[in-house]
Amino acid sequence: MAVYTEVGEAELAAFLAEYDIGAPEALKGVAEGVENSNYLLTTTRGQYFLTLYEKRVDPADLPFFLGLLDHLAARGIVCPRPIHGRDGSALRQLAGRPASITTFLHGLSPRRPETRHCAAIGTALARLHEAGGDFAPHRANALSVAGWRPLFEQSRADADGVAPGLAAELAGELALLERDWPRGLPSGVIHADLFPDNVLFRGPELSGLIDFYFACNDSLAYDLAVCLNAWCFEPDRSCNVTKARALITAYDQVRPLSRGEREALPLLARGAALRFLLTRLYDWINTPATALVKRKDPLEYLAKLRFHRNVVSLGDYGL
Amino acid sequence: MAVYTEVGEAELAAFLAEYDIGAPEALKGVAEGVENSNYLLTTTRGQYFLTLYEKRVDPADLPFFLGLLDHLAARGIVCPRPIHGRDGSALRQLAGRPASITTFLHGLSPRRPETRHCAAIGTALARLHEAGGDFAPHRANALSVAGWRPLFEQSRADADGVAPGLAAELAGELALLERDWPRGLPSGVIHADLFPDNVLFRGPELSGLIDFYFACNDSLAYDLAVCLNAWCFEPDRSCNVTKARALITAYDQVRPLSRGEREALPLLARGAALRFLLTRLYDWINTPATALVKRKDPLEYLAKLRFHRNVVSLGDYGL
Repeated sequence: MAVYTEVGEAELAAFLAEYDIGAPEALKGVAEGVENSNYLLTTTRGQYFLTLYEKRVDPADLPFFLGLLDHLAARGIVCPRPIHGRDGSALRQLAGRPASITTFLHGLSPRRPETRHCAAIGTALARLHEAGGDFAPHRANALSVAGWRPLFEQSRADADGVAPGLAAELAGELALLERDWPRGLPSGVIHADLFPDNVLFRGPELSGLIDFYFACNDSLAYDLAVCLNAWCFEPDRSCNVTKARALITAYDQVRPLSRGEREALPLLARGAALRFLLTRLYDWINTPATALVKRKDPLEYLAKLRFHRNVVSLGDYGL
Repeated sequence: MAVYTEVGEAELAAFLAEYDIGAPEALKGVAEGVENSNYLLTTTRGQYFLTLYEKRVDPADLPFFLGLLDHLAARGIVCPRPIHGRDGSALRQLAGRPASITTFLHGLSPRRPETRHCAAIGTALARLHEAGGDFAPHRANALSVAGWRPLFEQSRADADGVAPGLAAELAGELALLERDWPRGLPSGVIHADLFPDNVLFRGPELSGLIDFYFACNDSLAYDLAVCLNAWCFEPDRSCNVTKARALITAYDQVRPLSRGEREALPLLARGAALRFLLTRLYDWINTPATALVKRKDPLEYLAKLRFHRNVVSLGDYGL
């Protein structure tokens, strides 16, 4: 929930004059995302989404993100489509920040994902991977296995205060994943953060994939492993194998998983659980409990990590 | 900037079934207001504003607020109009909270108010006062002179840490205002918080007055005194007499100020400055600097208070 940069009427009018989307009618800061300032912009032509990129986003990455959305939208993926200005550019400055306008997607994020949502996500993720196959630019995944140790070291001293024994458990897990992390799997552009908050549905129909600001190049099956963590566990932290089966089966029907990917999935899922555990742990330790930002419980991901650690075959995911 | 209560798809659909405004298309939490959860709701019929009332709002006050908006909208005031459900009620429960839907007003809040905005506010405020004249329900102003001492006492011990000598200066100011506070002036429903954030303009035209959750019964001229503080000072904290004259003159042309109101205005403005100083001081002391909520500088209002203290006649406001 964040609006870090405020936009004045005159500067908005000047900014919109560079586009062909009508005159501003309303601008409401959206309580969404903690990285950027997001606005729902209403013009005489309709609704749009205005983003001002704040300090935590590297401006050098913006052409990758906006180019990817152009590429995916052109291939029928229901993602925000960048609006290009009269000069052809989708990226310019507003209120001293890099800024872009995209289409505004209709739909609601599922608060309590059901099996049908998991199946829809499997299909959409595989289509996303297929559509990204010929996207040439490259962006490394800063939060893959090489990025986990620095994160861990920044939280290590305080980890046992969050859960007794957590530091030692994470150290062991990290060492194993660094040693055994699957290499050479089919790779391409992944979303890397496809949680329910980043997916919209209109009734039964998936109507939007949003927030591509973690998108990068990595193993495609790792993206599926992220979704397995994000969509297929119940509030009591147990794995719902019906949902896991629905997710993986639907994915596999569009983009068949190789034998290597199938075998790697439990380890990828364990790594994905560790990745979210580590960023949540860092935020937990470094965000005051009194801050209005809701801190997300890192221990939710410890439970998921332990589940994946005990998986012996895909049968444990219901397959 | 806040969304405290999240709303699920199914509960939103059930809630909207009580209304005749179409099916939900999108719901975006709005980074606006710190008291309630606010959403911009898009349905198949258009855009609406959904508010879930959080703990700091007394549910007993909600019929006053919603009834007032109905009353004002019926009299042509450009305020949010409550949407009534099929049962006639504009207030029901959603996600365990009292909730209402209103129309969504187009326009932008002026970031740097100009003289023309001040004149428009004077006119709009006087019309608001006229339109509220026959609104029967009554709500006391909890933040008028009787409410200032309790606020002061909660901040007194820490006040000198904010500015040396502040505690003594506020104690003296408060004693004087308690003794001399104007009584018996024309009274009625006031907005009580008509800051630029709560006013929308479409180009030169005032298109919306919003956020009536401080509305109450009090001296009408006190509302004008609040606007004088909120609209007529420059970023360097000096009073802009051109703006003050525009505000007061425009107000007076719609609802002529009595001699008693004119004489009381400097003291009312001094009280209004103290009121915002005290709430900001309380928040300053009690909000961690690390919280994402922007704390507003209480000393801005100390400068305004001192200005009004030295006013000898309305000539000092440019009249």
